[in-house]
Amino acid sequence: MTNIGRKTWAFAGGNIPLETRGPEPDYTSHERLSVLNPSSKSASLELTVFYEDKEPIGPYEIKIAAHRTKTFRFNDLIDPQAIPLETNYGIILVSNVPVVVQFGRLDSSSGEIKQQGFVPYSE
Amino acid sequence: MTNIGRKTWAFAGGNIPLETRGPEPDYTSHERLSVLNPSSKSASLELTVFYEDKEPIGPYEIKIAAHRTKTFRFNDLIDPQAIPLETNYGIILVSNVPVVVQFGRLDSSSGEIKQQGFVPYSE
Amino acid sequence: MTNIGRKTWAFAGGNIPLETRGPEPDYTSHERLSVLNPSSKSASLELTVFYEDKEPIGPYEIKIAAHRTKTFRFNDLIDPQAIPLETNYGIILVSNVPVVVQFGRLDSSSGEIKQQGFVPYSE
Amino acid sequence: MTNIGRKTWAFAGGNIPLETRGPEPDYTSHERLSVLNPSSKSASLELTVFYEDKEPIGPYEIKIAAHRTKTFRFNDLIDPQAIPLETNYGIILVSNVPVVVQFGRLDSSSGEIKQQGFVPYSE
Repeated sequence: MTNIGRKTWAFAGGNIPLETRGPEPDYTSHERLSVLNPSSKSASLELTVFYEDKEPIGPYEIKIAAHRTKTFRFNDLIDPQAIPLETNYGIILVSNVPVVVQFGRLDSSSGEIKQQGFVPYSE
Repeated sequence: MTNIGRKTWAFAGGNIPLETRGPEPDYTSHERLSVLNPSSKSASLELTVFYEDKEPIGPYEIKIAAHRTKTFRFNDLIDPQAIPLETNYGIILVSNVPVVVQFGRLDSSSGEIKQQGFVPYSE
Repeated sequence: MTNIGRKTWAFAGGNIPLETRGPEPDYTSHERLSVLNPSSKSASLELTVFYEDKEPIGPYEIKIAAHRTKTFRFNDLIDPQAIPLETNYGIILVSNVPVVVQFGRLDSSSGEIKQQGFVPYSE
Repeated sequence: MTNIGRKTWAFAGGNIPLETRGPEPDYTSHERLSVLNPSSKSASLELTVFYEDKEPIGPYEIKIAAHRTKTFRFNDLIDPQAIPLETNYGIILVSNVPVVVQFGRLDSSSGEIKQQGFVPYSE
């Protein structure tokens, strides 16, 4: 079971909503990634963020212990640089071991919560 | 037609909502898996649940008769252990025969029903 | 461009909502399949419907002209037999030429329209 | 990292909503594509639009600079011809370099915003 997953994942249509209505942090508008590391080794992920009008920024480094999941919000990535809100971006993620990834989005900007979830592109 | 599908499926971003508003069981907040077993043999599935901060738990065993579908809620899995609500989890599912899987989610916690559906990662 | 797509598609989590609120046919609760036939030959699709507690039913036959799309609702399939509402089902679709498929769902039962869309499993 | 992605993408179930409620352009009902070009070469995309009852129309040409993303609405494609609203369509996209694609949809026609996002079919 420890070899399940892929080392490379990507998505193209990121955009963190600017506004939030409702109690934080549950209702905070955000985009997030959930990563499952089924391997018996710690996973080291390197994310690169791509934009419409400037050079890619990265790597952002994320670690996930062996046999664990981790969910993190793109809103919270600050090193080397925060991702600006209401800005189109894309992500390429490269892991040292195979992992399984899921994208999530919560948009509370209209006062009503919208949720999305899907599996990004992998190879 | 009996060989359609994959033996290994996984998703990373599970989280069963804590609260429900509206009549049960239709409006009960839940996450679920639908499995189609097109093969002429009964399918035996073993699920392992991964968490952020503790060892994986499993296997959970699910059987699906030949040429049948089955839909079950993660809320209802209790053996070997219930999945705690409002807790991030991921799943790896291994079947003895190829199957086709779909993830579903219903969140009624805000009083308004949100639905999601997608195809998990497979290999 | 005429060879793009796959000949086998499947999904596991179908369930047509029973109730509709709002003007038909736009607001009619339904599940549907959209099929793109990029090939220069007419596509002949055979669908088999799988259930939780009875034998599969089919084939349902759908034709899509060369270089055309077709969108049909599962609600409207009646030959050899209508798909019962509020009943879990799964689909296997086999085409004579490669096609591209998308699943869609509209649920107006709560008075508010919910929409879903995703790409089914293919091989 | 420059070879990540696929050169061919497609989806079958396009349909741009006719009506918009709320301030434009943020609330304008639309369908869109986000493209990530991780390669070190400019990407040249050719889109062909397929319909239910007429010949395919195209190519629509889109360029994405090296190491950049681009998001465009199908509503805004006008050369060689605008895509009619409330009309079923499908897309085949061919790129000269591998790219990563995501489909998005916003429907404000009922006065309430519905959002969808998923990864199209690729090969």
